[in-house]
Amino acid sequence: MSSISATATNQDVDAENTIARVQEMGRAARAAARLMARADTGTKNRALKAIAEELDARRAELAAANAKDMQNGRDNGLDAALLDRLELNDARIDGMIEGLNQIAELPDPVGEISDLKYRPSGIQLGKMRVPLGVIGIIYESRPNVTIDAASLCLKSGNATILRGGSEALHSNGAIAACIASGLKKAGLPETAVQVVDTTDRAAVGALIAMPEYVDVIVPRGGKGLIERISREARVPVIKHLDGICHVYLDDRADPKKAFEIALNAKTHRYGVCNAMETLLVAEAVAAEFLPKLAAAYAEKGVELRGCDRTREILPQALEASEEDWATEYLAPVLSIRVVADMDAAMDHIAQYSSGHTESIVTEDYTRARRFLAEVDSSSVMVNASTRFADGFEYGLGAEIGISTDKIHARGPVGLEGLTSQKWIVFGDGQIRE
Amino acid sequence: MSSISATATNQDVDAENTIARVQEMGRAARAAARLMARADTGTKNRALKAIAEELDARRAELAAANAKDMQNGRDNGLDAALLDRLELNDARIDGMIEGLNQIAELPDPVGEISDLKYRPSGIQLGKMRVPLGVIGIIYESRPNVTIDAASLCLKSGNATILRGGSEALHSNGAIAACIASGLKKAGLPETAVQVVDTTDRAAVGALIAMPEYVDVIVPRGGKGLIERISREARVPVIKHLDGICHVYLDDRADPKKAFEIALNAKTHRYGVCNAMETLLVAEAVAAEFLPKLAAAYAEKGVELRGCDRTREILPQALEASEEDWATEYLAPVLSIRVVADMDAAMDHIAQYSSGHTESIVTEDYTRARRFLAEVDSSSVMVNASTRFADGFEYGLGAEIGISTDKIHARGPVGLEGLTSQKWIVFGDGQIRE
Repeated sequence: MSSISATATNQDVDAENTIARVQEMGRAARAAARLMARADTGTKNRALKAIAEELDARRAELAAANAKDMQNGRDNGLDAALLDRLELNDARIDGMIEGLNQIAELPDPVGEISDLKYRPSGIQLGKMRVPLGVIGIIYESRPNVTIDAASLCLKSGNATILRGGSEALHSNGAIAACIASGLKKAGLPETAVQVVDTTDRAAVGALIAMPEYVDVIVPRGGKGLIERISREARVPVIKHLDGICHVYLDDRADPKKAFEIALNAKTHRYGVCNAMETLLVAEAVAAEFLPKLAAAYAEKGVELRGCDRTREILPQALEASEEDWATEYLAPVLSIRVVADMDAAMDHIAQYSSGHTESIVTEDYTRARRFLAEVDSSSVMVNASTRFADGFEYGLGAEIGISTDKIHARGPVGLEGLTSQKWIVFGDGQIRE
Repeated sequence: MSSISATATNQDVDAENTIARVQEMGRAARAAARLMARADTGTKNRALKAIAEELDARRAELAAANAKDMQNGRDNGLDAALLDRLELNDARIDGMIEGLNQIAELPDPVGEISDLKYRPSGIQLGKMRVPLGVIGIIYESRPNVTIDAASLCLKSGNATILRGGSEALHSNGAIAACIASGLKKAGLPETAVQVVDTTDRAAVGALIAMPEYVDVIVPRGGKGLIERISREARVPVIKHLDGICHVYLDDRADPKKAFEIALNAKTHRYGVCNAMETLLVAEAVAAEFLPKLAAAYAEKGVELRGCDRTREILPQALEASEEDWATEYLAPVLSIRVVADMDAAMDHIAQYSSGHTESIVTEDYTRARRFLAEVDSSSVMVNASTRFADGFEYGLGAEIGISTDKIHARGPVGLEGLTSQKWIVFGDGQIRE
C-alpha cells in the first residue's frame, strides 16, 4: 500500500512540475510573440536559412539522437510503419532543409494591408494581416513535422510551442537545438520556438488549457488524438478530422474524364486524406461506367464494397455496410453507391462527408454550378481529382495541415491561415459627433 | 424527503425535455441550413421585407406580448435600466423595420468568388464565400436583438437558433411569429430562424453542446454569460469580452487633436465597449495636456483615477489601483497613467488591453507606423477616437457584435463574419501525375 501511494504522489509531483514547466514556456512564448510580430521579413528569412545551415552542419548529432529514438522504438516494439516515420535519414534532413529554404522564398503575409478606403467620417479604414500570436502544435511520431511546423509559424510571425510524439523525443531535442541556434544567429528570441522536452502526458493537457498564453492549437495526428484535444481544449483548435472524400460521376459526365478521375482519386495514393473513399455513380450510367472502372481497380488491388445496385452490376463487390459510408479507409478499399441523380449524390455527401473534398464529373453547366455552390466542403471540384486538395497544389508553398473546420481557416492551411486581420484606422483628428 | 426527490425528478424530466427539444431544433436548423445556403439574394431580401411588413402589421400583438414581459419584469423587481432595455415601443419597432430594410439593401456575401487563377497543373482555383451553417445566438434582455441577429444570419444564408433572455419570452415569441410568417411568404423554411421558447436554463447548455447541429455560437450579453459559454461550449464561439480601450497621447501629438480625441473617446458615450477606459500620456507632455483635459472631464462629471505621477499633476484624481488598469468601467470613470514613451505605452497596452481598440495621437510618422503594426488589438488607430470602432462606422451596414477573438472574425462582425470561404476548383479532367 505505502509504495503505491508513494508512486501516486510522485506522479502528482511530476505532473505538477510538467504543468509548471509548460506554463513557463507559455509565458516565454507570449513575450517572444510580441518580438516575432514585429520582426521584419529579412530577419525571419535569415533565421529560416540559419536553421537550415544548422541542420546541415549537425547531421551527425541528428543521426545520433535519432538512433536513440529508433533503438527505443525497436525495444518498445513499434511496428515497421511507425519506425519508418520516426527515421531521420540524410534524405529527410535534405527535405527539411529544402522546406526551410522554400518557406524563406514565400511572400511574408504579415503587415499586408488591404481594402484601405475612406469612410464618410473622414477616417481611412483598412485591414492589416497580423500573426495569431502563440500557436501550440501537437503531433505524433514524424520528427520532420518539428521543422515544417516551426518554419511556417516563424515565417508568419508567430511564436510556437511544439509537442511531438514521445518516441521522437531525442530527435526533436536535436532539431530544437538547431532551431534555437538559427533563431539566435538571426537576432530573434530563442523562445520563439520551444519544444516540450518531456514525455509526460500532462504537458498536452497543460498546453491546451492556457488561453492566456496560447492563441490556437493545431493538432496533427490520428483521429483519437484530435478528437480528445478538440473536446478538452480551452483555446480554438484548427483541426483536421476525417478525409471522407467523394467523387460523383454524373450521367452527363464525359466517360474518359470520369474513368481517369475516379481511378486517380482512389489509386494515386491510398494513405492520404484527399483520396476518394466513396464513389457515387448516377444510375443512368452506372452499368456503363462501373465494369470498366472495376477492372482497373482490380488491377491495382482495390477492394470494392457496394450498395445493392452496385453489386447487381459488379457481383464481385462486397456488401457495403452503413459503417462503410462513414469510414476513411486510407487503404486500397473503395465504397461505391449508385444514386438516382445529383440531388441524391449531394444528399449522400451532406450525410456522410467529413467536409474535406468532393468532386463532380459532369459536362452539365447548371449541375456544375449547383454542385460548387451547394456542397459544403472545404474543397469542391468540377472535373478534377480530389488529390489536388493540398497546399502545394493550391500554391500555398507549404501547409500546416488541412482544416475541416468552417471557422477561420478552411481546407489547406498555409502561412495565411496562421494569421488574422485586424482593422487599422488612419485619422487626422476625427471624433464621433 | 419524498417530495424533494419528486421535485428533483420533475426538474430532471424538464431538463431532459428541454434538451430533447433543443436537439430537435438543431436537427431542423441543420436541414434548413442547406436550403438557406442555396437561397438566392432576391428570395432572402423578400423574406427580410416580408418580416418587416409583419412587424408593422402586428404592432398590437407585439405591444400586448411586451406588456406581459414588462409586467412580469416589474413584478420580479427588474431595475429601471433593464425594464428600459426590455421595452418594445413603436419607435423600437420602427427601428427593427428600418434595420431589416437596411440589411435587405446590403450586398449578399454568399457565392462571391475571389482569387480565381490557374495553377500549373491546369486546374483553376478560387475561393467561394459560403454561409457558416447554423448559428446559435444567446443574448439577454433586449428583444430587438432577436430581429438584428435573425436578419444578419438570414441575409448571410445561415440558419439560426436564438435564445433570448427569459424576461423577454413573450416579446421574443411574438417577434418569432413575425419572422416565421415572413420566411414562409418568401418560400423559405420557417425553421431557418427558431427562437427557443422556454426559460429553462438547460436550453443554453444543450445549444452550446451540439457540434453536429450548430457550427458557431455568438453570445451577446454580460461578461459572466460570455465567459461561462466560452468555457462550456463544445463548438467555436465568436465572442466579445471586455472593451478596455486605450488612447495614448504621444509627446509628438498635436495638442488640439489630443484634447479632442481624449475627450470624445471617453465622454461621447459611457456605456459602450469602444469608449476609452484608460488614458496613457507621455511624460514629456503630461503636465501640459492633463490639466486642461481634467477640467473638461470635470465639466462632464468624469471621475479620474491616476497613477502617482498623474496625481502630482492632478491632485484631485483618486489613486488608481492595479485593478483599475484591468477594469472596463462603462461609466464616467477614467484611469490615467503617465508613461515614459510609446514603448512604455505599448507595454501597458500589451498587459492590460482586452484587445478591442487602441488609438495613438501623434504626428510622428515612424511611431504611427510602429503603433499600427505592433499593437495587437482588433482595431488600432492613429489620430482618431476609439468610438469609431463599430460596424456602422466601418461600413459593414450592421453588426452582430464586436469580436475580441483573434481566430476567424476580429473586431466588428457583419455579414462577412458570418460566412467562411471554401476552395473551388474548375477542372477539365485533370488528375495528379
